[in-house]
Amino acid sequence: MSTIEAKLESLGLPLPTPPAAVGAYIPVMRTGNLVVTSGQLPFIGKHLAFVGKLGAEMHEEDGWNAARLCVVNALAQIKLCVGSLDKIKQIVRLEGYVHSAHGFQSQPKVLNGASELLVELFGDAGRHTRVALGISEMPLEAAVQIALWVEVRD
Amino acid sequence: MSTIEAKLESLGLPLPTPPAAVGAYIPVMRTGNLVVTSGQLPFIGKHLAFVGKLGAEMHEEDGWNAARLCVVNALAQIKLCVGSLDKIKQIVRLEGYVHSAHGFQSQPKVLNGASELLVELFGDAGRHTRVALGISEMPLEAAVQIALWVEVRD
Amino acid sequence: MSTIEAKLESLGLPLPTPPAAVGAYIPVMRTGNLVVTSGQLPFIGKHLAFVGKLGAEMHEEDGWNAARLCVVNALAQIKLCVGSLDKIKQIVRLEGYVHSAHGFQSQPKVLNGASELLVELFGDAGRHTRVALGISEMPLEAAVQIALWVEVRD
Repeated sequence: MSTIEAKLESLGLPLPTPPAAVGAYIPVMRTGNLVVTSGQLPFIGKHLAFVGKLGAEMHEEDGWNAARLCVVNALAQIKLCVGSLDKIKQIVRLEGYVHSAHGFQSQPKVLNGASELLVELFGDAGRHTRVALGISEMPLEAAVQIALWVEVRD
Repeated sequence: MSTIEAKLESLGLPLPTPPAAVGAYIPVMRTGNLVVTSGQLPFIGKHLAFVGKLGAEMHEEDGWNAARLCVVNALAQIKLCVGSLDKIKQIVRLEGYVHSAHGFQSQPKVLNGASELLVELFGDAGRHTRVALGISEMPLEAAVQIALWVEVRD
Repeated sequence: MSTIEAKLESLGLPLPTPPAAVGAYIPVMRTGNLVVTSGQLPFIGKHLAFVGKLGAEMHEEDGWNAARLCVVNALAQIKLCVGSLDKIKQIVRLEGYVHSAHGFQSQPKVLNGASELLVELFGDAGRHTRVALGISEMPLEAAVQIALWVEVRD
């Protein structure tokens, strides 16, 4: 088990079998030293754990946990692609989409659930750029969708 | 004519002259072996063929066809950039934005129009990662907007 | 001072100290020869200068100016990362998100404020691909959010 996976276990977030795609696409792809994931939803196994809009059915803390879960799923996809999370040299970018009710503008706080986890796991190599958007309609009504770009070692 | 273009013709989707940009930008750019397109709209020539929101004026099947058309236009842009679709080594990513009325969550089904076409045309090289979002307001009220990333051969 | 910075000064847009991130992320990252920024908001120093939705509180001209300001901030981040704007070989992509009220579809005109500035500053090297979306809810209620990808020289 990689150091990163051990850290995830100690946080109560063991790396899962990565979720299947919800359409005619694949969940992760490498091009050169860049690995990009598809948008990850807050699945636990086959169960979508956070459904609804932030600022309506979902509270900020739900969103924070949903974002964290999306990252765990993204990391599971990346492991599937490159064999070990220890191959990650740098998290490059997090694209964060928050299912938002009218008037909800705390997307940054929700996505900090994801960003803080990455730094906790990877240290400086986990520091990343970010785009944060509030989205009106989301596939399967998921509370959050997150895609990662990571640079991997040769 | 490339094999891919012949397949497109047999599907009744001949590669068009690529649509002009709808602003002060260009439609396609290469950086290293990565080619990225601007967001493509469902134009047929100068006519925007699918206008409106999914879940309101537009039905799911309209969206599926609009997504397919966006991909055809994206491929036309990529040919313009690299000379032939046979230079495409791998479709890396599809970014799909679906103009969605309140309560519409079938973005994945709409975007499957695009994703399935890519696999039909390119086989394994057409399998790609995807981000799927429901967007409240879209340039020109287009039903769908899609951008592609592809890896090309040297 | 670089030629680009001199041009910015002559336009009354001197390169600022780049704004801090509004969350647990960093504003800019290099991977290979690609530099990507986080989503930039229309800050002037610590003041968010354009707040509200296009088509409601914000007029198209406000949005155009906000988009311009986002680009100036993105360039300040890129300078921080690579040392000088003269290292920019090509602007590759602009991702433009416009905070839009119901029925507002002039995202392209708003984002032209950003796109035209890049061409004015960099000439052909400033011509870029673009994705333009209308977003229902935006961090801090900012009028516009823009992220840039640029290719830099070795």
